Amino acid sequence: MKHISLVYLLFFYSQFIIANNDLLPSWTDGPTKSAILHFVEETTQKDHPHYIPVEERIATFDQDGTLWVEQPLNTQLFFAIDHIKLFAPQHPDWKEKEPFKTILMHDVAGLKAFDEREIEQIIAVTHANMTVHEYKKAVQEWLQKAIHPHFKKPFTELVYQPMLEVIQLLQKHGFKTYIVSGSGQEFIRAYAEKIYGIPPEHVIGSASKVKYIYQNDCPALLKLSELLFVDDKAGKPEAISLIIGRRPFAAFGNSIGDREMLEWTQAGCGKRLELLVYHNDAIREYAYGPNSKIGTFSFALMEEAKKRGWLVVSMKDDWKMIFAWESPCKLP
Amino acid sequence: MKHISLVYLLFFYSQFIIANNDLLPSWTDGPTKSAILHFVEETTQKDHPHYIPVEERIATFDQDGTLWVEQPLNTQLFFAIDHIKLFAPQHPDWKEKEPFKTILMHDVAGLKAFDEREIEQIIAVTHANMTVHEYKKAVQEWLQKAIHPHFKKPFTELVYQPMLEVIQLLQKHGFKTYIVSGSGQEFIRAYAEKIYGIPPEHVIGSASKVKYIYQNDCPALLKLSELLFVDDKAGKPEAISLIIGRRPFAAFGNSIGDREMLEWTQAGCGKRLELLVYHNDAIREYAYGPNSKIGTFSFALMEEAKKRGWLVVSMKDDWKMIFAWESPCKLP
Repeated sequence: MKHISLVYLLFFYSQFIIANNDLLPSWTDGPTKSAILHFVEETTQKDHPHYIPVEERIATFDQDGTLWVEQPLNTQLFFAIDHIKLFAPQHPDWKEKEPFKTILMHDVAGLKAFDEREIEQIIAVTHANMTVHEYKKAVQEWLQKAIHPHFKKPFTELVYQPMLEVIQLLQKHGFKTYIVSGSGQEFIRAYAEKIYGIPPEHVIGSASKVKYIYQNDCPALLKLSELLFVDDKAGKPEAISLIIGRRPFAAFGNSIGDREMLEWTQAGCGKRLELLVYHNDAIREYAYGPNSKIGTFSFALMEEAKKRGWLVVSMKDDWKMIFAWESPCKLP
Repeated sequence: MKHISLVYLLFFYSQFIIANNDLLPSWTDGPTKSAILHFVEETTQKDHPHYIPVEERIATFDQDGTLWVEQPLNTQLFFAIDHIKLFAPQHPDWKEKEPFKTILMHDVAGLKAFDEREIEQIIAVTHANMTVHEYKKAVQEWLQKAIHPHFKKPFTELVYQPMLEVIQLLQKHGFKTYIVSGSGQEFIRAYAEKIYGIPPEHVIGSASKVKYIYQNDCPALLKLSELLFVDDKAGKPEAISLIIGRRPFAAFGNSIGDREMLEWTQAGCGKRLELLVYHNDAIREYAYGPNSKIGTFSFALMEEAKKRGWLVVSMKDDWKMIFAWESPCKLP
C-alpha cells in the first residue's frame, strides 16, 4: 500500500514537472506545437547540424492578426477615428468632406471600404504635426481608456497568449524578436515593450518622415505626414534589410501582407520556420480567411502555405486559450 | 634583503594588475580618459543617481574620422573611384562626362571639390543595380586588396585603437553601440562586425532604397540608386529616431555632421556623454579642423563644444597610440 502511494506520488510529481517545463502551455499538443519546439531545440543545440550562432538568431512577427486582434478594424484605425471625432469641432468642413464625413457619420460599411489614399488622409491629420514624444503620449493615453467594441476590454489585453509564449520561448533561446508590421512604427513602439516585451529598437512598422526642429530652443523630432516607407508585402523584407540587415530564421504572419516576409525567410539556407495564424474561431475570436469575406488570408495564400510547407496554426484547434484573461489562473 | 625583494615583487605585481585592469590602455591618463571612465562607472552602478537601466544604454558613434581615418578622402569614395575605373571600359562616354572625367584623369583637386549631386552620381553607378548581397561581396573583395595611399595599409587597419577600446568598454557595461554615419549603411555593414564588433542591426548609415525582386525565381533585394535618407547633420537624430527609437546616452563624433547628434543626446535627461575627436596630429595621422583648410571641424563647432561642455579629444595628447599596429605587442 505504501509502495503504491509512493509510485502515485512520483507519477504525480513527474507530471507536475512536465507541466512546468512546458514552454508553450497554451498550445494544444500536436504537430504545430512540436514543430515550433523542435525548431528552437535544433537551432540552439551547438552540435546540431541546424545550429544557428546566437548573433544570427532573428525572428520577425507581424502584429495585427498575428500578435493581437485586428477585427473588426485595425487598432490604429480605432485610434485615428477617435482622434478625428476629437478634432472635428475645430474642422467644421469635415462634416461634408470625405473621408472624415464617413467617420463622423459612424458609417462602418463605408469605413471598411476606405482605400489606401483615404486611410493616408486620416493618418495625416491624426499622426502628424506633433513631436514623436507627443504622439507616443497620445497613443498611451488613448490606450488607457479605449475599449474594444466586441470584447469590451482594453486593446492591450487582446494579445494572443500563445504567441506571447512563442516570443518568450525564442527570447529565452537567444533570438532577437522583432515586430514587422504594416501599422505605424511609432504607434507600436508606444506599447510594445510593455505588452510584448519587445523594445523600441526591435519594432519595425510603416514609417513617416520626421524633421529635427527646435521647440523653445530645445531640439525635438516632428512627425511629418509624408510616408518614408510602407512596411507591408514586399515592403516587409525591404524594411528588414534596411533596419536589421540580416535575414530572419523564423517569421510569423497571418495574411497576404506577410507572404513576402515568409518567402524571404524560407529562401535562406539552413533550417527556417514560417508560420501563419489562421483565424477560424468564430466563438472565441473571429473566423476569417479563405472562407470569409473579411480578412486577407486568401485561398492563394493557403495553397502557397501547403505547397511550401509553412505551418498554419488553427486558432480553434491549436490554441487551448487565446487570451490570458480566459484562464481563471493566469499562465506564467 | 629578502623583505625588500618581496616588497618589490608585490609592488611590481600590483602595477601589473593595475595595467591589466586599465580598460582604456591606449588613452593617456588625464581629464578626457577620466570623464569617459566616470561616465561608465556612474551610469552602470545600480545605486548611483546617474544609473541608466540596461535596456536604455545606447551609445552612437560616427564612423569616418571618429572610428577610422577619413583623409585624404572618405573610404567609400576610394571604393567608388576604383569601381569607376573598373567599369570605365564599358562606358567610353565617361572620358568626356563629369564627374567621371575628373576621376579618370586622377584630378585630386577636382575630386575634393565634388558637390553632393556629383557624389550622388558616382554612388549611383557604383552602388546600385546589384543586390544587397552582391554589393556586400564587392565591398569585402575590394577591402581585401585596397591599400591606403598614405599609410600603405589596408583601410580596415586604419581603425583608431583608443575608440575601439571605448566601444568595448561600453559593450562590456551593457551599452548597445551603434554606428551612425553619413557613409552608406550597406558599405559599413560589409565589415563593421569584423573590425568594430558592431553587428549589422546596429549600423545606421545613409540608405538607398531597395526593391524586392526575383532572380531565377529566388527572391532578392536590389539596391536602387534613389536615396531613402541621408544620415548626416539633422539626418542623424532623425535616423536614430527611425531605427533605434531611443535617445542615446553617449554620442561620439568629429565634425559638423555630428553636431545635431551630440545636441540631441545632451538634450535628454540624466547623465549624458558627448565627445568630439579633434584631429591635431599631423605626424601620426592628420591635422585638420579649425586651423586647417580640410575637414569639417569648424571654429563654430569648437566654440559650441566649449560652451556646452562636450569633451574634445586631442589625438596628439590624449591618445598614446592611434593604430593597433603602432605597438610592438598588440594591446588586448
